[in-house]
Amino acid sequence: MIPTLSTPMGAELFKLEKYIVNHSCDIEQWFRSQWQNHQAPFYASVDLRNAGFKLAPVDTNLFPGGFNNLCETFVPLSIQAASVAIEKFCPDAKKILIIPENHTRNTFYLKNLYSLHNILSKAGLEVRFGSINDEVKTPEVITIEPDKSITLEPINKKDHGIIIHNDDSSFFRPCAILLNNDLSVSIPNELKDIDQHIIPPLNAGWITRRKSNHFKFYDDVVNEFADFTKIDPWLINPFFEKISNLDFHERKGEEELSQRVGSLLKKIQDKYDQHQIKHAPYVVIKADAGTYGMGIMIAKSPEDVLSLNRKKRNKMSVIKEGVKVSEVIIQEGIHTEENIDGAVTEPVIYMIDHFVIGGFYRVHTAKGKDENLNAPGMHFIPQPFETSCLMPDQGRPCDDEANRFYAYGVIARLALIAAARELEFKS
Amino acid sequence: MIPTLSTPMGAELFKLEKYIVNHSCDIEQWFRSQWQNHQAPFYASVDLRNAGFKLAPVDTNLFPGGFNNLCETFVPLSIQAASVAIEKFCPDAKKILIIPENHTRNTFYLKNLYSLHNILSKAGLEVRFGSINDEVKTPEVITIEPDKSITLEPINKKDHGIIIHNDDSSFFRPCAILLNNDLSVSIPNELKDIDQHIIPPLNAGWITRRKSNHFKFYDDVVNEFADFTKIDPWLINPFFEKISNLDFHERKGEEELSQRVGSLLKKIQDKYDQHQIKHAPYVVIKADAGTYGMGIMIAKSPEDVLSLNRKKRNKMSVIKEGVKVSEVIIQEGIHTEENIDGAVTEPVIYMIDHFVIGGFYRVHTAKGKDENLNAPGMHFIPQPFETSCLMPDQGRPCDDEANRFYAYGVIARLALIAAARELEFKS
Repeated sequence: MIPTLSTPMGAELFKLEKYIVNHSCDIEQWFRSQWQNHQAPFYASVDLRNAGFKLAPVDTNLFPGGFNNLCETFVPLSIQAASVAIEKFCPDAKKILIIPENHTRNTFYLKNLYSLHNILSKAGLEVRFGSINDEVKTPEVITIEPDKSITLEPINKKDHGIIIHNDDSSFFRPCAILLNNDLSVSIPNELKDIDQHIIPPLNAGWITRRKSNHFKFYDDVVNEFADFTKIDPWLINPFFEKISNLDFHERKGEEELSQRVGSLLKKIQDKYDQHQIKHAPYVVIKADAGTYGMGIMIAKSPEDVLSLNRKKRNKMSVIKEGVKVSEVIIQEGIHTEENIDGAVTEPVIYMIDHFVIGGFYRVHTAKGKDENLNAPGMHFIPQPFETSCLMPDQGRPCDDEANRFYAYGVIARLALIAAARELEFKS
Repeated sequence: MIPTLSTPMGAELFKLEKYIVNHSCDIEQWFRSQWQNHQAPFYASVDLRNAGFKLAPVDTNLFPGGFNNLCETFVPLSIQAASVAIEKFCPDAKKILIIPENHTRNTFYLKNLYSLHNILSKAGLEVRFGSINDEVKTPEVITIEPDKSITLEPINKKDHGIIIHNDDSSFFRPCAILLNNDLSVSIPNELKDIDQHIIPPLNAGWITRRKSNHFKFYDDVVNEFADFTKIDPWLINPFFEKISNLDFHERKGEEELSQRVGSLLKKIQDKYDQHQIKHAPYVVIKADAGTYGMGIMIAKSPEDVLSLNRKKRNKMSVIKEGVKVSEVIIQEGIHTEENIDGAVTEPVIYMIDHFVIGGFYRVHTAKGKDENLNAPGMHFIPQPFETSCLMPDQGRPCDDEANRFYAYGVIARLALIAAARELEFKS
């Protein structure tokens, strides 16, 4: 099911989607040249928002959860893409250890792990889960559905390598470690000074990664892409600013934040005027190293950040695992104009190596079009894409399902190139 | 629909299928190491036969037709695999020319071309068909189905390159030439001394290629594979002999052929005795450079080749496009014990780059289990595989559909490695 766009699509975006669909050969050739020079991350997911007048990524996740939300039809596509990735990152690998997040009581997340295990084992790897949570002291079999379970095992370190060696299991020394843990707090000692491949590299973890840095690389990618598409780069790129040395708790930096929010809103308003867009601009303030939809707020005026009550300030001041927020990115808000049965939705695109392998719609029945939808809860209903995003269909209208998803795959891959360059630059 | 095996599966083959399914990690790692050292052909199809006691390739086609027979569900898999192949063979390519066979009045073959066009254009290439048939003098639009057509165009040569430049079409200079013409007779002048990538290389054409040479390389691959599976290589490898200097028309070499048939039948009988197989051995005599199911006969005794009537001798003496047969391969016949509703079937596995992307069953309602099924006609009913061949399922019996197809994919990829080495060696 493809959501409907609740506004008529703007002429510029329509032109962009049309350009993308009609110039898929040029675009794919351009992508090929990029992938000759840059190594895509092992896997990634990109959150997009489509405002009808603008289509852009708002977040790029290098430790994607949610593989369970993809359409089962395209599992073979994931397996094949994973084979390519394995050949590049660790061709000699036979055994791989997935290091999951620590919040392993979340059923959705467990299902994601099960899906990931399925993809990698069908790509021909022996896969086990090793926890870096100190509380996991013995192997735990966690049942997900009556006939589906995963085993979470404690890890040890021996001879510069991570191993699993329980009383009740055979000795397991993986050739590669796949992180599905975003390393928000620190790099665990277990991961330091080991001779196994670590995928993605440790600098992808949020302890060092910054959203603003990613979007700086994305700026460059978009400018290069705009060079040959001749489109206004703003159509696929949200404005952003970075602010450091904040303390929401102590209200330190509040004034500067307010001013920068004001100037960014002005900049957006100018663009809206230029494109005759009637919406009210807004910005999203996010912890620059934040994840899981935490440390996020919306501002529609400079005053919005001055009038925060204690509860909201507290909410902005710490993120996942209690990490204190001192740096934020102020990002142009993109109204999501897609909806399914009246509920606002945003597409999330999944990639393994440099291949789009599927996607789904994050649907929130209780949120507005200018709100963050990455808010787990009973109202979050993923809708898997029913086409593979691989195939533009020249014979059909450019906003046809296959063509819209192809365009989504193109924009997501632009963010993927940014991520590739970002990881290279830091390592 | 998976065919039924009409004999109980032999203990050895059952052990082999079980080994393959249970050791997919070792096997995939072994394949990865092979693909680190060898470049798979751009595309290939492999004809397999399953006798219940033996499962082996009988032919490897480097100019596969029949893409139209694959299950549509797995088209995305083909597109992704084609992207990988393009990145390797011609990363800078934007335009590709397919050179088809000349018998373009065959609807099945035209459908194959349409499918191939679809895969390559969705992988992001501009695709056109250039004919090396002198009779094609102006662009011909050939309708395949009411809403499907292909355009066959004459080619020209200019500045060391093939181009299309008709009055009614824009100038087209492809970056790469994809051969879907098996070059049985000669290498056309148009293909000589050009600076465009030719895929597969010209030495893959039947003007130089020999089946016996392919199976010599296959012998090596099987022996290496058997080294770690510890199986009897014969289970997956048909015996063969090569004979040169034959002239069926003049009955030259008939005696030698008869003797060699006799000794090969004896060799097979010994293996049958060793494995307690009750079938009557037979051999297939094939033109060593033959294709399209032409120049093929069955022999169950040395006398069978002495008693050929004039019509049969004529049939063996020339193959496609009138090429004279002087070399044959005598190949151990493999009884196909798979059948669908009583009709004998053999699996054909398709690969792009080193990825299995699907397969189908060649079903012949009018042929016996010891006959050549590659005989076009109204009784040839392709049955596309409904699983992707990518995914063994450890939790299920080894002769379950997914697992049997996975095993087929493994054996087909062994033949693919042989083809890769064969092309390297000659070029």
